[in-house]
Parts: sequence; structure tokens; C-alpha cells
Amino acid sequence: MSRPTDVILKNVELLSMDSIKEYKYIPQKGEGPMPSIPQLKEVVELVKAILFPGFFNESGRTGGTRQYHLGVHLERLFLLLEKQISRGLNFFADQINGEVALDASELAAAFIDRLPEIKRLLCTDVKAVFDGDPAAKSYAEVIFCYPAILSMVHYRIAHELLKLGIPVIPRIITELAHSKTGIDIHPGARIGEYFSIDHGTGVVIGETCEIGNHVRLYQGVTLGARSFTLDERGLPLNVPRHPILEDYVIVYSNSTILGRVTIGRETIIGGNVWLTNSVPPNSRILQQKALTMAFTDGLGI
Amino acid sequence: MSRPTDVILKNVELLSMDSIKEYKYIPQKGEGPMPSIPQLKEVVELVKAILFPGFFNESGRTGGTRQYHLGVHLERLFLLLEKQISRGLNFFADQINGEVALDASELAAAFIDRLPEIKRLLCTDVKAVFDGDPAAKSYAEVIFCYPAILSMVHYRIAHELLKLGIPVIPRIITELAHSKTGIDIHPGARIGEYFSIDHGTGVVIGETCEIGNHVRLYQGVTLGARSFTLDERGLPLNVPRHPILEDYVIVYSNSTILGRVTIGRETIIGGNVWLTNSVPPNSRILQQKALTMAFTDGLGI
Amino acid sequence: MSRPTDVILKNVELLSMDSIKEYKYIPQKGEGPMPSIPQLKEVVELVKAILFPGFFNESGRTGGTRQYHLGVHLERLFLLLEKQISRGLNFFADQINGEVALDASELAAAFIDRLPEIKRLLCTDVKAVFDGDPAAKSYAEVIFCYPAILSMVHYRIAHELLKLGIPVIPRIITELAHSKTGIDIHPGARIGEYFSIDHGTGVVIGETCEIGNHVRLYQGVTLGARSFTLDERGLPLNVPRHPILEDYVIVYSNSTILGRVTIGRETIIGGNVWLTNSVPPNSRILQQKALTMAFTDGLGI
Amino acid sequence: MSRPTDVILKNVELLSMDSIKEYKYIPQKGEGPMPSIPQLKEVVELVKAILFPGFFNESGRTGGTRQYHLGVHLERLFLLLEKQISRGLNFFADQINGEVALDASELAAAFIDRLPEIKRLLCTDVKAVFDGDPAAKSYAEVIFCYPAILSMVHYRIAHELLKLGIPVIPRIITELAHSKTGIDIHPGARIGEYFSIDHGTGVVIGETCEIGNHVRLYQGVTLGARSFTLDERGLPLNVPRHPILEDYVIVYSNSTILGRVTIGRETIIGGNVWLTNSVPPNSRILQQKALTMAFTDGLGI
Amino acid sequence: MSRPTDVILKNVELLSMDSIKEYKYIPQKGEGPMPSIPQLKEVVELVKAILFPGFFNESGRTGGTRQYHLGVHLERLFLLLEKQISRGLNFFADQINGEVALDASELAAAFIDRLPEIKRLLCTDVKAVFDGDPAAKSYAEVIFCYPAILSMVHYRIAHELLKLGIPVIPRIITELAHSKTGIDIHPGARIGEYFSIDHGTGVVIGETCEIGNHVRLYQGVTLGARSFTLDERGLPLNVPRHPILEDYVIVYSNSTILGRVTIGRETIIGGNVWLTNSVPPNSRILQQKALTMAFTDGLGI
Amino acid sequence: MSRPTDVILKNVELLSMDSIKEYKYIPQKGEGPMPSIPQLKEVVELVKAILFPGFFNESGRTGGTRQYHLGVHLERLFLLLEKQISRGLNFFADQINGEVALDASELAAAFIDRLPEIKRLLCTDVKAVFDGDPAAKSYAEVIFCYPAILSMVHYRIAHELLKLGIPVIPRIITELAHSKTGIDIHPGARIGEYFSIDHGTGVVIGETCEIGNHVRLYQGVTLGARSFTLDERGLPLNVPRHPILEDYVIVYSNSTILGRVTIGRETIIGGNVWLTNSVPPNSRILQQKALTMAFTDGLGI
Repeated sequence: MSRPTDVILKNVELLSMDSIKEYKYIPQKGEGPMPSIPQLKEVVELVKAILFPGFFNESGRTGGTRQYHLGVHLERLFLLLEKQISRGLNFFADQINGEVALDASELAAAFIDRLPEIKRLLCTDVKAVFDGDPAAKSYAEVIFCYPAILSMVHYRIAHELLKLGIPVIPRIITELAHSKTGIDIHPGARIGEYFSIDHGTGVVIGETCEIGNHVRLYQGVTLGARSFTLDERGLPLNVPRHPILEDYVIVYSNSTILGRVTIGRETIIGGNVWLTNSVPPNSRILQQKALTMAFTDGLGI
Repeated sequence: MSRPTDVILKNVELLSMDSIKEYKYIPQKGEGPMPSIPQLKEVVELVKAILFPGFFNESGRTGGTRQYHLGVHLERLFLLLEKQISRGLNFFADQINGEVALDASELAAAFIDRLPEIKRLLCTDVKAVFDGDPAAKSYAEVIFCYPAILSMVHYRIAHELLKLGIPVIPRIITELAHSKTGIDIHPGARIGEYFSIDHGTGVVIGETCEIGNHVRLYQGVTLGARSFTLDERGLPLNVPRHPILEDYVIVYSNSTILGRVTIGRETIIGGNVWLTNSVPPNSRILQQKALTMAFTDGLGI
Repeated sequence: MSRPTDVILKNVELLSMDSIKEYKYIPQKGEGPMPSIPQLKEVVELVKAILFPGFFNESGRTGGTRQYHLGVHLERLFLLLEKQISRGLNFFADQINGEVALDASELAAAFIDRLPEIKRLLCTDVKAVFDGDPAAKSYAEVIFCYPAILSMVHYRIAHELLKLGIPVIPRIITELAHSKTGIDIHPGARIGEYFSIDHGTGVVIGETCEIGNHVRLYQGVTLGARSFTLDERGLPLNVPRHPILEDYVIVYSNSTILGRVTIGRETIIGGNVWLTNSVPPNSRILQQKALTMAFTDGLGI
Repeated sequence: MSRPTDVILKNVELLSMDSIKEYKYIPQKGEGPMPSIPQLKEVVELVKAILFPGFFNESGRTGGTRQYHLGVHLERLFLLLEKQISRGLNFFADQINGEVALDASELAAAFIDRLPEIKRLLCTDVKAVFDGDPAAKSYAEVIFCYPAILSMVHYRIAHELLKLGIPVIPRIITELAHSKTGIDIHPGARIGEYFSIDHGTGVVIGETCEIGNHVRLYQGVTLGARSFTLDERGLPLNVPRHPILEDYVIVYSNSTILGRVTIGRETIIGGNVWLTNSVPPNSRILQQKALTMAFTDGLGI
Repeated sequence: MSRPTDVILKNVELLSMDSIKEYKYIPQKGEGPMPSIPQLKEVVELVKAILFPGFFNESGRTGGTRQYHLGVHLERLFLLLEKQISRGLNFFADQINGEVALDASELAAAFIDRLPEIKRLLCTDVKAVFDGDPAAKSYAEVIFCYPAILSMVHYRIAHELLKLGIPVIPRIITELAHSKTGIDIHPGARIGEYFSIDHGTGVVIGETCEIGNHVRLYQGVTLGARSFTLDERGLPLNVPRHPILEDYVIVYSNSTILGRVTIGRETIIGGNVWLTNSVPPNSRILQQKALTMAFTDGLGI
Repeated sequence: MSRPTDVILKNVELLSMDSIKEYKYIPQKGEGPMPSIPQLKEVVELVKAILFPGFFNESGRTGGTRQYHLGVHLERLFLLLEKQISRGLNFFADQINGEVALDASELAAAFIDRLPEIKRLLCTDVKAVFDGDPAAKSYAEVIFCYPAILSMVHYRIAHELLKLGIPVIPRIITELAHSKTGIDIHPGARIGEYFSIDHGTGVVIGETCEIGNHVRLYQGVTLGARSFTLDERGLPLNVPRHPILEDYVIVYSNSTILGRVTIGRETIIGGNVWLTNSVPPNSRILQQKALTMAFTDGLGI
């Protein structure tokens, strides 16, 4: 037998060896399939087509047939979600809190019932992004091109799914936006109306953040945890540990705010700031002024 | 009728309700289709195949048939662009400045006429990236793998389309690169020859930036606006508001330069700096030295 | 002849003109095709399906047929790699160091032989990510959703391919992860066991970094080079120039560590720090405290 | 230059040479594109989904949302047809008879107006096929599996398009069925209600055939032309030249009926008959009895 | 509203109108989806890959990994069949005879258990086709290219599924072969070993045919029913009504044999014969000799 | 372990068992892959696009760029053919006659050299089909829609490849046309200029046929072999055994002509004739007149 075939046969063996200690971290996958990432992508695409008709699908020449498209999209959305939620409930059964049984069909219908409110909130985000960017030419451009809106669509979908108690799927949906935009919003965060992010790459919003209305963040802003409370096994506890940003707060690029601190309303945080304490309303926080050094050599700093 | 069907029927109704105040931010889309993002992706792929023959398509065994490939690619590019520009002009008709009528076919041809100059500029960028990175093994590797070159291809295409007065499409094209590389260059920025970015994730270059020749940026650098001039309605005005970087400037990672400031030639800005004022040529700017704290407890900082 | 056709014919001519000085930077591509990026994506997908059975492919209902799937995946992986390595060796023949001839088939088999160890290392990374994130619900979720694991899969594959002396392909594989996660790890970096990254966007780990065990990085952290040693032609030399992080080091978000410095074990670096010198074990390094300014005007800072 | 490249360059030349006499039969194609066969396939698929809801698309769980699917399908059908008809009118402009201008949008709408009648006719065909085949288990099976119904769907669509004066597209649509079923019905033929074909491969029904109600054909039956009336240039004239079959006629497999003959009502034609004359109602026509020969040798006949 | 939109809205209405008498022939489709034709195509492709390894899939370089491919293919086949059989049982529940409940999983496993015998029979068919065709160059060519083998693969799969009591799916599978080859074998027909068909287009083999071993048919041969026995409602009864062909019978092209007649062993039927009676063993049956007519006019016959 | 898994494991075993006698007919496939049918389909599509520019690809708006398309298509054709011929030569190495070594690259180039003559011949076929069909509206329609032209494109390609000594691939190419059109022309047949087939389903033209110029066949015509000359092992010898049709012969539908007979020039054969002897020039051959029977009963014949 050829060397490659030998190598294949040998490694089939080795890779199944549960005697290797570290392999045991990997769960023994059970019967059912995992939630399908391509189908969850389609879920988001459908929601976008439903909420912003004419922007993300080619629905024809006039509004006269719009209700047909809405109906078909909603039915397709229902069927896809029902199946994916069912997979999620099956696979991550051990992660579900609460005593009541969850029914995939009921949950999918409940999500659809929240779409009008999701649409209302996203409309406020569109307005906030447009109002805050002199380079924006129209609401249409903001809806169609701006990564901030893309990430908010994913987040607002995921947040509703999380509130319904559905495991894993919310996280997958926000990670899809994270991958495309570099904006990483945990589905558990609570975010008010008229929220905007500019550019966005590198933004991190942690699981227990609470963000008011009319808040604006720039690229690279972290709203993170400062330290963990450990449980008796030495594992970090999932308690409120991320910042609270009150209404009308602005945080400029690359600043880091860590811990369960409160940033008072109408405060402005400058860029590249490291902040681990609360600040009162109407504050202005800036990095220490940079040093200007004497000229020394060609490239070195 | 089953509950899911009920829910679908009800929400078809609700989601069309213009009586909901916020829904009115969303423009009533008209007759024509939006520009197609997949086709704009193909536009960029074609330009890459045209400018760097043999790198991004499998054009056969020898150079003997290269002109056939160039011809077919250019024709395809023309047809795609003509259609997409026409969609852009139609949909965003209200955004077009100027009195002269714009003709999609003329504009597509005009863009093709600028390809040789785009190629010349990109060649200087390839050289700059190669010269600045000890890890780079060859020009070929830089063209084939480096996100900096990918983002510059998108930017230089988009910038030419913007100069031709084409709406929306330039922004879509730079957002495609933003999504892939984390580098967000506004198509309106002006960037000279031999421009290089290292790593790149998180770089933001604003709409009215002016960047000289031989400038080099690292990841996370923001060239942004500090504050907005508001018009009589309270909306920000689109005036020059981003930095000017003269020739041979280097900015290290995660620094933020805001406002219509001028960074003099051959200046080096260190990393994590927050800078909102101009600096003279040949400057060296560094963050204040970090504090070293006494050791306290396990994880907390 | 129509104007568009004229423009096409003219630019076919111009774009082939080697008389334009800058065009000469672009290598004259030779006979063979470039490595195929879609096939290298499939390589990574196969490795994921092999290392984490049931997570990234739908392998059926029970574990009873797992060895068939492993066998088919390994064979497919072998064939794909053999072909792509062969393309890489052909195209970048000038970049290969060493006197011994490299054989694509041997190299592909050698890589497969390293998969069990790659799996072992990744299992430690999964544990480290899970232990460090209170929001993580299970190992399965970490494997399935976390960009840190995605980037480590790519890096650990690429690092082994690089150690085998294969040109270009390692870099393509880490760039694929860079594009998806914003995490840019050079395949040449050396990284120990139980490595974790949180959120990750904007992380840069340079070519000559050496990272111990149980190290943890947050988003936006740069482990970069400070300045280059130039050779006699003025080009930067590829010498050790990136930091060494000893065991149990933690670096918070957006900090930048440059140059061949050593960060002693169990040190914690706070966020947004600019650091260009070595620090002893057990240090705590923080940014200077931010300034609180008096309230001045509406938006300006 | 390599031999293959030489051969390519030479034959590019030769294949464009209009000096070769026979090449001139091939029309010089004009500006616009040909009708798209993949899109015409989609047209037929849409009509099938519209006429037989639930059979040829996955329209969801209940009939409660059926009108949405119908609406979306009809709109898509309209848009596809409008575009393809426009291509057909453009390319084959010289083939259109009559003085009135044809408008693609009007024609597409007119076709949609005929769908209810097409559906009514096809329902009679389904019944006829089911009643005539002891092997058929249900109407559903006949709709879903029987090539006779497939060919009748294509024919009845094509016949209506032809009656609207649309060139070429009707023929493409019947050829698609011909390729799939071996049943070749010219779109110009006139066919009554309750028409059935069994098995069907090899059936040919010519352009000027007139077929009554309740007619049944078996595989291999030809209803063809016997000879042509030539015009002054020696080309065959397009006059009535195919058979008339009155109500309740049955023709068994592989029989050939040629010329403008009339087969009277309730006549049965046996298999493998060659018939070039009219027959009165209620006739029975059989091939001459076959000869039984003495046994001679191994295989030879 | 535009005319096309009007037309669409009106016809949505009309096409749902059950008041139209003929529409009622079309069954009201229930909840579940129909069997999927693309998935049944994949079923056949899998069986081909399983029975003839290396011919219909690219299974790698040596036989050393063959069992992995077999295992993966069989598992995939099982899962596909299980799902499709379940759909078939659901939708055509009314067509299932017998009192015992049918279980899709059991049936799929039972089918897989018959694959070795299906393979054995197909091997005899390959030999028979090869032995009977001087143009055949090798067994491999016969397996790879000959429509007779394609149609026998479909038939022998479908026949086993039918014997298991599975509704509709067998018919779909033979119709797939009918469409590709023009050979229409009812899955209910019984066919012995070493069966061959040459060319094949137009061959029809009816539901109750019984065909011995070493039988050979040419293109256009019909083994059909002569007349139907009607039941009390006037519908044809499904009783034995097609021919019996004993061992070593040969039927030449375009001949038609109708009714429950017996063609004795080693009989040869010439081409274009119409035969509705039994013939004893070793017979030779030929069409009456054709007439040679005097030359009359240009084209007419 | 579950029953399905058991069944899979068992049959993996059984299906590999070479101890089953019949399995041994199936060749043990060697190292290399089979010729790829999808790629051979692309070969034919390319030839169509090359020979009839503008009909089968969307080559743009004017003829001004036609040579670019020809060049790209020819290069692509060369590369595809080179690879497929190489696979054919490898797999069917035992079938190649002759002493001279065959080189895939040389053969692909030689085929391209014959394209101008193939185009010339096909132009004569287009003219013949158009002249013979009163329903044909234009040459363009004949090229675009008529199955006769489709089958002749395949045949004329396959015939040239066969003359170059390439195994298997010619047969695959004619079978592709057979499947689509029901016309089965052996690539070895020799066919003159101005050849036409009407409707075509069921036509069979055997390997050693010789057909003159201006010959016309109708659907269901067989030009076959009557009996085989057996060699010493009892296998049929591949000697001239099919008919010769001289110039201007016409054969009507479903007639069968068998054996090495000669049909003299300008002869017309009527439909459904069984003919196994030669006929002199200018003959008219008809089936015996059918019988008209007395009316007897309802359906029976």
C-alpha cells in the first residue's frame, strides 16, 4: 500500500483515540445535527427583506404586490426558524434554563410577532446613523451600505431570540455580524433607541451592558468586564460586570471602559482612553496629552 | 387556521403599516432595482484580473493569449458597470450633484480609461508594502495575500468612480473591502503614491483626508473628524474635517488623529496616541509612559 | 465602431505596456496556476470536520460510521493539499530555503501525520477560552461559535505547514482567518498551549513572537515590531523583532507591545497601553489616568 | 511561442473568415442577446408551480398562505416573460407577421390572463391520462410523474404564446419538453380537451394538426406531412399539411399518419401502421399480419 | 395601479377558484412536502457510486480507502432514502396496500440489504450488453457510457423499492431514466438476468411484463397492453395484460407486441412488426415485404 | 449499535466481495480518474460558442470584440480537451490501436485545427434542415432550437476526435446528444454534407454506416446491423455491417434498414418499412397497405 494510504489509515485510528487526555474536552456529539449556519444566514437575509422591502431582494416593479412578498418571506422565515430552533433546543438541551418545555414552532411564531417592534427600533437606529454622519447622503444609503445597520439588524434579531430563551442561535447570529463588520455585540446586551456606531471595526459590547437612548460609539470602543467573580470551582460567574451608558453618551474611537461602571448621561469620552471608574453626567474624559519627542533617528521610535 | 398561519397573516398587516411613526424613515422604494452587490463584487474581481494578470484568474498556460483575456474581461467589466451605474443613477437620482446629465455607458467607458493609471498607482502601493515588511517574501505574495493591497484596489476603484460623480457604488465597493479587511477608507479620501498599511484591521480614513506619498499606517489608526459644523437644521455639514498627512508620515497602531489638523512630513506618531492638533514636520509623538503598579491580587486590575 | 468598443481596444493595449515603469513591479506570471483560495478554504473546512467530528459536517446519526467519514475526509484532504502544495512549490520556487527537494505528496502526508497533535493543542485552547469567559455556556458553543477558536484552527494548521517549509500557503490560510475574525496571527509565530483570545478583532501577532502557555489576549492587542534592522540595500531584515510573552500573561484590549521585549510570567497589561520595553514577572501595567475636563460646549471635544 | 498557442491564434483567424462560402449561412448576430433558455425553463417551472400548487414547489405547511405564493410566482413570471419576450421580439424582428407593434409587457400580461384556461385544459388532460392507464394510482401521481402531462404543460403554454404572435419562444418551450420526454408537439398544432399520450417517446405532432377531444396516442406515433407544396423558389410552403383527428380517436404505438387526411371520430389505428389516406368514423386499421418464417440459423434474420 | 399588477391580482383570484369544475381533479395537497426529485436523483447517483466504485465518483488514488467511501455513501444513501420514503408514505398514504405499518427507516435499511443482489444482476446485464455489441470496446465503456445500463440501474433500484411496498418513488426513478434514455420500463415489470437493450430510445416495457434470462431488445420495441378489462365503474383493471418473453428472445427495432401473449424461448421477432398473439419457441417473425413502387414524381410518396 | 448502522457495516463488507462471481465483470478501476462528463459537456458548449458566435453565449454588444471571445474560448477548449484526452488515454490505454504514442496536448491542438472544417460542414446541415422544413422561420431559429443541429454538432465533434484515435470520449459526446435528442449516431459513422434529420427521436445510425450528401431522415429511422459475424470466441466481429445511403436519399419515419445494403441515390423509403436488401437508385419503397377491419367492440383491437 502506498505511503499516503498508510498515513491516512494510521491517522484515522489516532484521531479517534479518546485515550488522549485533551481530546476529552471535545463533547461527544449526539444524534442530531447542529444548527445550520447557512440557514441562519438565510434567516437574517429574510428578516432584512421583510423589514426593508425593496432593499435586499428584487421584489418587482411596484408596491402593488408587496403583501405577497411579505407573506412568502414570513412563511419561509417561520419554517427555517422552526427547524433551526428545534436543532438548537436539541443539541444544547443542557443549556436551557427554566422548567417549562420550549416548543420550536411556538418560539418561531413568537419571534415573528416581535418583528414590527424590531423594525421600529431599527428605524430609529437608521435615523441616528444618518444624523450623525455628514458623509451619509440618504436614509437609503445608510440602510443599504452601513455596517452599523447590518450589525444592529443582527443584534436586534439575536436579542429577541435570546429573550425567548433560545440557546446558541443568538450567539451565532451576532457572530455572523462580528465577522462581517468587526462589531461584536453580545446578544444579551440591552441597547435603547437611536443607537449608532460609526465605522465600527473593533467595537465590543459585553453581555451585561445597559445602553440608553441616543448613544453613539466609534470604532474600537470596548465596553468590557474588568475582572471576574469566581465561583467555588474557580470558574468566572456570569453576573453584571459590564458598563452602563446613560442616554446621549458618546465614546470616541479605541477607548476601553471596563467593569460595572456608570457613564452619566450626555458624557463624552475621548479616544484611546482606558476607563475603569464611573463618571457623572455631562463629563468630558480625555487621554493624557501625548509627548512630543526630540527628533532622533531615521525610523526608530 | 393554525397559529403560525395566523401569526403570519397578522404580521404581514402590521409590517406594512405606515401609521407607525418610525417606519416613515424608511424610503418608499421606487420602481427600479438597487445596485447588485454580487455584481459589484464581480466588478472588483474583474479589475483585479485585469490589473494583475494570472493572479486572480486561471488565464492559461502562457502569455501568448493574454490580450484575449484582457479584451473579454474589459468588455464584461464595461457591461457590468454600465448596468450597475444605471441602477445607481436611477435609484439615487436625488443625490447627484451638477447640471449635466450622466450617461451610464459614457461613465463606464470613462472608468475603463482610468484603469492604466489605477494600475500604475497600485504598483507603487505593492512596492511600498513589500519594502516595509520584513516578513514579505516577494511582490507576488504581497499582491496575492496582503489585505492592504486588497483594500487599496477597492479604494482606488471607488475613488475614480466617485470622481466621475457616480453615487452610492463607490461606497459599496469600499464597504466590501472594509468587511473583508477591517480597513475602512472613504472613497472620497485623497491618497498619494506608495501608500502602505500594515495588518490594517481597524484603520479608518475619513472622507476629507488628504494623504501624501510614501505614507504608512498600522492597524487601528483612525484619521477621523473631531466635531461637526452643524447647518441651520442641526445636521452636520460636509466640510473638510479630517487630517492632512504629508509625505513620509508613519502612524503606529491604534492611534487616533482627529480634526482638520496637519501632520508635517516625515513625522512619526507612536501607537495608542490621541491627537487633535497639528504637528510640525519631522516630529515624534508618543503616548505618556504607562504606569507600573504594585502586584495586588489574582486577576483583577 | 462604437465608443465603448474603442475604449476597450485601446486599454487592452495600454494595460499590457511594460514601458510603464511601475508596471514592472508586477511579476511576469509563469506557466502554472496560483494556489487556489477556494480549495485552501476547503482544506481548512476538512481539517475542522476531522478534528471536531459532528460540528462542521453532517456526518450522520451515530458515531458508528465515524471512521468512514474520517477516512474519506483524510483522503480528500491529502489530495487537495498535494495539489495546492505542488502549485505553491511551483510558483514560489524562488522562496524556498534549503537544499533538499520538496515533494508535494510527501509534504501532504507529513501534514496529516501532525493532525493528532494539532487536535491536542486546539483542545487546550478550547478549554482556555471556555474557562476565561463567563458568557460561554459549553465547550460545544466555544468550538462552534467563537472566532478565537476559528483563528487558532487556521493558525495551528498554517504553523505546521510553515514548519514543513511550504511557501505562501500558510500565509493564505492565516489571512483567511484574519478576514473572518480580524485576528491576524503570522504563521511563523510560536504559541504554546491553552492560548485564548477574547473577541479578538484587531489582534496582531507578529512573525517572531514567542508566546508561552496559558496566555490570554483581548481585542485590539498588537504584538508588533518597533523598528527594523536594515540590510545593505536598505531593506528590513527578517530577524527576531517581536515580543516574548511568558506563561500566564494577560494583555487587555487595544494595548500595543512593540519590539523584542520580554513580558515576564503572570504579568497583566491593562488596556490602551503603549509598551516598548521589557517588564519583569508579575507586573501590572496601566495607562496613565485619563483627564476629566470641564464641560465646555455641545459636541466638541 | 508554443504549438498550442500558435494553433489557437491561427484558428481565431480562420473561424472569423467570411470568405468561406458556407459560413455565410450563419446569420450575423446583432446587438441584443438571444432569449435565455435557463430563464425559459424557469418560466415553465413557475407555471407548473402556479397551476399545481404544492406539487412543484415547497410552499409551506398549509393552504393558508397560498395566495402569497401565487402572487409572488405570478409577478416573477410576468417579469421573466416580459424580458424574454422582449429579447425574442428584438432578435427575430424579421419573423413577426402583422402590422401592429407588439409590446413585451402587454404580451406577458396577456399570457397571464390565459393561465386559468390553461389550467382548466390541463385538468382535463390529467383526468384523461389517469382514466386510460390501469397502472396509474392517483391524479397526484399523474401530475407529478407522467411525461404526458409534462409535455402537455409545455405545449399548452407554448400554444398560447404562439397565438399571441410571440416568435421563437414557443418553439424553445416545446423543444424543452421534446428533449425531456421524446414527445415533439409543434406549438402551432391545435389540440382539444381530455388529450392523452401513453409513454410518449417518439410521438410527433406537426404544425397544422387538428386534434379533437378525448383523443389518445401511444408512443412513436407520427402525425406528419406527406409532401410539400413548393413555392416559386423551390422552398416548401407552410400550408395545412398534417392530419385531422376527430374526437375519441386512438392511435397505437409507432404508427405513422401523413398528410392532410381526416381520421373519423372513434376510429382506432393499430400499431406500426403507415397511413396516408383519410378513414371514415368508427374505423379499425391494422398492419398486415406478420409472416412466420421457418427456423433457419443462429442469429440471422 | 399598473396594468400588470392588476392582471396579477385578478389571476391570483381566478387560479384559486375551486368553483371551476375541472380544477377539482387536482388533489388538495396536504401538509407535507412531496418527495424531492433532486434528492431521488442523488439516491441513484449514490447507488451507482456504490455499485461501480471509481466510475461515477472520484474516490481517490487507490483501492486502499475504498471501504471508507462505501461506508460514507451507504450512510448518506440511508439518510436520503429514509427521508424520501417517509415523504412518499405520507403523501400517498391512500395508495399503500396491506395492513402492516410501513416504517421509513426499516424500508431504507431493507433496500440497502438488497444492494449486493442488485449489483450481481447488473453485472450480468453489463456482460450481455458487451457481448451483443461489436462496437463495444470494454466492460468499462459499457458501464460508463451505455444508456441500456443506465436504464437498468434505475429499473433494478425501482423494482426493489416497489417490492418493498414503497409508493410513487419507484415510478419517479424509472421516469428519470425514461427522460434520459427514452427507455420506459415500468418498475413492476419482472426482468431476468443478462438482459440487454441496444440503443433503446422508444422501448416500452409494461407493468405486468415477464421477461426471462438472456433477452435482447432493440430501440422502439413496445411490450404493451392490447385492451383493458374494465371494472364496474368503467375504469381499466390492473390485471396481467402485458407479454411474457421466455429466455433468449430477441426483438428487433420498432416492433410492437401487445397483450398477455407468450413469446416462446429463442424466438426472434424482426423489426416494425405488429404482434398481438403468442408464438411458439424458436419462431422467426417478420413484417410483410415492402412494396417497390414505380417512380412517379419529385418528392411525393 | 442501531439497526441501520449494522446494515451499513454489513453491506460495506458484502459489496466489496470479489468472491461473488458476477462482480468480476466489473473492471478493477486503476489509479487515475475517469473522463469527466461535466467537463465534456463544457467542451461541447465551448465548440458551439466558437462555431456560432452570439448564439450560445452572451458575448457582448458588437462584433468588435469577437476575436477576444474566440481566443479565450479556444484556449479554454484546448485546456479542457488536453486534460480529458489525457484521462481517456490513461484509463482506456488497452483500447488504443496503433503503434505511435498519442500525446494529449498534440491531439487537443489537432482537434482545434479541424474546427473550421467542422463549422463548414455544420453550415451545410443548417441549410439542409432549413430548406426541408416549412415550419422553420430562419437559419437562426434552426441553429438555436433544432435538435437535429444539436445532434450533428455532437456527432461532427465526436467523429473528428475518433479519427484522431482518441478512445471513449467520442462515444460519451454522442451519448450526450442521444440523451437530449433521442438521436443516436455512432461517432464512427461517415456522413456527408447537407445532412438533415426531422424531429429525430429514435433515429439510430450505426458505426459503419456511410451516408452521402443531401440525405434526409425522419424520426425513428434505424440504420442498423442485421446479423453479426462471430469470431472464433463467439463474439461479434466489428466489420462493415450497416447500410450505405447514396446522395439525396430520404427515409420516412420509423423505417428500419438493416445490414450492409446499398440504398441507391434519390431513393425514397416510406415510413414503418422493414428493409434488409439493397435497392437501386430512384426507388420508392412503401409498407404494404394496412387492413381496414370491420367495427367490432368498444376498445379492443
